[in-house]
Amino acid sequence: MKLNIALLAGDGIGPEVINEAVKVSDAVAKKFGHEITWKPALTGAAAIDAVGEPYPDATHEICKNADAVLFGAIGHPKYDNDPSAPVRPEQGLLKMRKALGLFANVRPTFTFPSLLDKSPLKRERIEGTDLVFLRELTGGIYFGEKGRKDNGDTAYDNCVYTRAEVQRLAKKGFELAMTRSKKLCCVDKANVLETSRLWRETVQAMEKDYPEVEVSYEFVDAVAMRLVQWPNSYDVLITENLFGDILTDEASVISGSMGLMPSASMGAEVSLFEPIHGSYPQATGLNIANPMATILSAAMMFENFGLMEEGKAMRDAVNKALEAGVVTEDLANGGKAYGTKEVGDWLAANV
Amino acid sequence: MKLNIALLAGDGIGPEVINEAVKVSDAVAKKFGHEITWKPALTGAAAIDAVGEPYPDATHEICKNADAVLFGAIGHPKYDNDPSAPVRPEQGLLKMRKALGLFANVRPTFTFPSLLDKSPLKRERIEGTDLVFLRELTGGIYFGEKGRKDNGDTAYDNCVYTRAEVQRLAKKGFELAMTRSKKLCCVDKANVLETSRLWRETVQAMEKDYPEVEVSYEFVDAVAMRLVQWPNSYDVLITENLFGDILTDEASVISGSMGLMPSASMGAEVSLFEPIHGSYPQATGLNIANPMATILSAAMMFENFGLMEEGKAMRDAVNKALEAGVVTEDLANGGKAYGTKEVGDWLAANV
Ligand SMILES: CC(C)[C@H](C(=O)O)[C@@H](O)C(=O)O
Ligand SMILES: CC(C)[C@H](C(=O)O)[C@@H](O)C(=O)O
Repeated sequence: MKLNIALLAGDGIGPEVINEAVKVSDAVAKKFGHEITWKPALTGAAAIDAVGEPYPDATHEICKNADAVLFGAIGHPKYDNDPSAPVRPEQGLLKMRKALGLFANVRPTFTFPSLLDKSPLKRERIEGTDLVFLRELTGGIYFGEKGRKDNGDTAYDNCVYTRAEVQRLAKKGFELAMTRSKKLCCVDKANVLETSRLWRETVQAMEKDYPEVEVSYEFVDAVAMRLVQWPNSYDVLITENLFGDILTDEASVISGSMGLMPSASMGAEVSLFEPIHGSYPQATGLNIANPMATILSAAMMFENFGLMEEGKAMRDAVNKALEAGVVTEDLANGGKAYGTKEVGDWLAANV
Repeated sequence: MKLNIALLAGDGIGPEVINEAVKVSDAVAKKFGHEITWKPALTGAAAIDAVGEPYPDATHEICKNADAVLFGAIGHPKYDNDPSAPVRPEQGLLKMRKALGLFANVRPTFTFPSLLDKSPLKRERIEGTDLVFLRELTGGIYFGEKGRKDNGDTAYDNCVYTRAEVQRLAKKGFELAMTRSKKLCCVDKANVLETSRLWRETVQAMEKDYPEVEVSYEFVDAVAMRLVQWPNSYDVLITENLFGDILTDEASVISGSMGLMPSASMGAEVSLFEPIHGSYPQATGLNIANPMATILSAAMMFENFGLMEEGKAMRDAVNKALEAGVVTEDLANGGKAYGTKEVGDWLAANV
C-alpha cells in the first residue's frame, strides 16, 4: 500500500513523539511492504509563530489531500493565561476539526496489566476496563454562535444540534458496539437540555435498526460518578462535544495509563490520529516524553486502513516494551528510565 | 431562637431521611433551648400526584416565609424514561431554585477517617481531602432560552451569564476561601466559551479585593482529571451551573462517603439544605436508607443561623455513630446494619 500521511507535529513535545511514531511506522511499513510518504505541515503555536495563524490554509491543503493525518499536540504556555488573545492555538484545532469534518472522536480507555498499580483507583475497580467514548466533535456549544451584549457585561454561547448530526455520530456508536460487546450508553442531560432530548429521542428511534444492541441512557452527572466507581461497567459510550471533552479526560486517568492512550477523529473522508495527552511544555526538548500514545495512535491509523496485522505488530511491541521495562521516566517506577528516542528505537527494532 | 423551617420531604427515601433529620434537629433544639416549627410542603413527584405540579404555589409561599428549607430528595422512576413528559419532578427543582433565588450551591466533599477504605480511590490519594464546590445554580444553560426549529429537527440551548451573576457567586467563593486556606480555583472552559471568558475576566478583576487569596484558573476537563488524581490538592472551587453539576457529582464519590455528603443552596434570603444523594426509589419504605447526609445538612442549617455549637453537636454525634458502628447497611461492611429509624434514634439520644 502507498500511503500519504500529513504530519502535524505541533507544539511542546509534539515534534519529539511524532518523530518516534514516524520511526516505528516506517519500520512496520518496511516489514509489511508498504510505502509511507510523510507530509509535514505547520499547526498550533508553531504555526502562529511562523505564519500568524494556527491552522494555515497550506496545512489544510496538505491534510485534505492526505490519506490520514498524524497529529502530535498543540498548546503553548504563552497563551494559557490570556484566553482572549486574538489568535490562539486552540482555534486552529477547532478550525481543523470543522474544516476536515472530523465529527467523531474515538477515545478508548483500557488498562495494561503491568500498569494497573499506577491508577489512582483501586485495582479491583479498574481490572478489565475497556471502554470507548465516541465524542461528537464538530457541533454543540463549541461551534454555536457566541458573543457579548450589554457593553460586554452579558456573554452567551449557543448549543445547537441537528438530528442529522446526532444520527451520524450514533450510527458510528451502534456500529462500534456491534463489533464489541453490543452495549451502548447514550450520555446526555435530557432532564434539563433540549439538545439532550433531541439526542435521546434520535438514538431511541435508531434502536430498532440494531436490535442486538442493548442501549442505556444515563445523565452526564451520573456517568461522571460511575466512571470513577465502576469504569469496567461501561463499553461504548456516545455523547455530545462538551460532555465528551470532560468525561474522556476523566476516563483517561482512571486506567493509570494516560500517557499511553491514543485517539482517532473520523469524518467523511480523511481521519486524524493523535495521543490524548497535551503538549507538556516543561518536557520539551528533554528527550523524556513518552512516545507510546502517539505510536499507538499510529497503530489505530494502520488498522483504520484495514492493515490489522500492522497495527497489531505495533501494539505487541508496546506491550513487550512495557513488560521488558523499556519505558520513559513516567512509567519507570524508580527503575531505569529510557529516553524518548531510545524507546522509539527499541520499538522500531521490535515490530 | 424560634425557627420556622419549611420541610420538603419529596420522593422515594426523602420522607424517611427527613423524619430522622427532624428527630435529631428537635433533640438538638431541646438541648440548646430553641424552638423549631416545621412546615411540611409538597414537592417533586409527590406534588405532581397530589396537585398536578412539582413546585406548587402553596409550597413556594411556605418556603418564602420560612427561615430555611430542609429538603429530602426528588425523582421517581416513572418519569425517568420519558424526559419529555410534560410535567417532571426536576422542573419543580429548577423552578424552586429560581423562585427562591438560590444562586449558590455549596457542596463540600470531605473524608471520614473510618470510611477511607470505602472510596474507589487509593487511600493515599484521598487522605486529607476537604474541598468545597460553589456551583452557580440559577443561570447558565439550565435557564437560557431553549427549543426546537426546523420541524423539531434542530434543538438549541442557550447559555447566558451576566457579570453580576458571576460576581455574586465569586464573592461567596472569595469569602469562603478567606475562612479556609485562602485558595480559590475558578473552573471554566475559557479556551472555547465566551461565557467562560466572562467568568475568568470577572474573577480576575476581583482578585485585587482579596489580596490574600491565591486564585488559580483551570479548564473543566483538566479539573475532571485532577479531581480523581489528587482531590486533596483542591480547596474552594467556583464554577458555573452545568460544570458544577458534573464535577460535584464526580467529587462526591471520591471520598467514599457519598451517602454522608450534605449541601446548602444560598441566595438573597432563605437558604435550602439537602443531602446530595437522590431519591433512591428501590429503597423506599424499607427503613434502610442512610439518614446521615440529611442530618449533616440540618447541621449546616444550624451553623448558617450562627448556631455553631448546635451544628457541631450533630456532627460529633455522626462521627461517634460511625466509630461505634451504628450505621445503615451501606456502611455496615458485613457487620450489623441498623435501620434508618434506629440510626436517627441513636443520634437524637447522643447529640
Ligand atoms: C484544547 C481544547 C480546545 C480541546 C477541546 O476542548 O476539545 C481539548 O481539550 C481536547 O479535548 O481535544
Ligand atoms: C435533577 C437535576 C435537574 C439536578 C441538576 O442538574 O441540577 C441534579 O442533578 C442536581 O445536581 O441537583
